[in-house]
Amino acid sequence: MSKFGLFGKFTVEEHQREELVRILLEAAASMQDLEECENYVVHTSAQDPRAVYVHEVWTSENAHQASLQLEAAQTLIRHAKPIIKDVERVCPLIPQGGKGIS
Amino acid sequence: MSKFGLFGKFTVEEHQREELVRILLEAAASMQDLEECENYVVHTSAQDPRAVYVHEVWTSENAHQASLQLEAAQTLIRHAKPIIKDVERVCPLIPQGGKGIS
Repeated sequence: MSKFGLFGKFTVEEHQREELVRILLEAAASMQDLEECENYVVHTSAQDPRAVYVHEVWTSENAHQASLQLEAAQTLIRHAKPIIKDVERVCPLIPQGGKGIS
Repeated sequence: MSKFGLFGKFTVEEHQREELVRILLEAAASMQDLEECENYVVHTSAQDPRAVYVHEVWTSENAHQASLQLEAAQTLIRHAKPIIKDVERVCPLIPQGGKGIS
C-alpha cells in the first residue's frame, strides 16, 4: 500500500492565525509517537497573513483516516473548526521518498 | 533567522515523470547528511500524471540558496532541466514546527 501525502491550506482571520498554528502544533506534538504519521509540518506564509499550510505524510490513507478518530484529532477539530474560514487541499499526494520520511 | 520552506510543483511529459522522481530522490539522498536541509520529500499525484511535487524545509533561506551551488544540486539541475516543462512554487513558506523537522 502506498504512503499517503497531503498539502493543505487553512484560511483564518488574520488575528486568529497564531491560534490555529498553536492548535496544529499541538496536534503534531500529539502525533510524535504515532508511527503512521511520518511528517506533519505546519507553515505560515509571508505572502498571506490569513493562511496556514500543513504538509503531511502518512504510512497509508487508512492510517490517516483512522487518526481523525483519535481523541487528540477530535479535540483539534473542535478547537480549530470555529476559526477556520476555508480549507483547500492543494492535492492528494503519493510520497515517493526523500529526506524526513522513512 | 526563521526556517525556510518550499512546496513546488514540477511538470514534465508523462513518460518522464519517473525519471524526474529518480533525479529528485538522488538529490534528497545527497542531502541526507546536510543538516541545513531538514525535509525534502518528493511526491507524485494520482490526479496529474505529469506532476512531481517537492516539500522542502531548510534552516534558513541562505542555506537553501547555498545548497544550489553544491555539486549534487548542479548535477540535478543539469539532468532535470531538459525534461522540466514548468515549475510552480505554490508559495514560499515559513515553517512553524511540527513532526519531521527539528
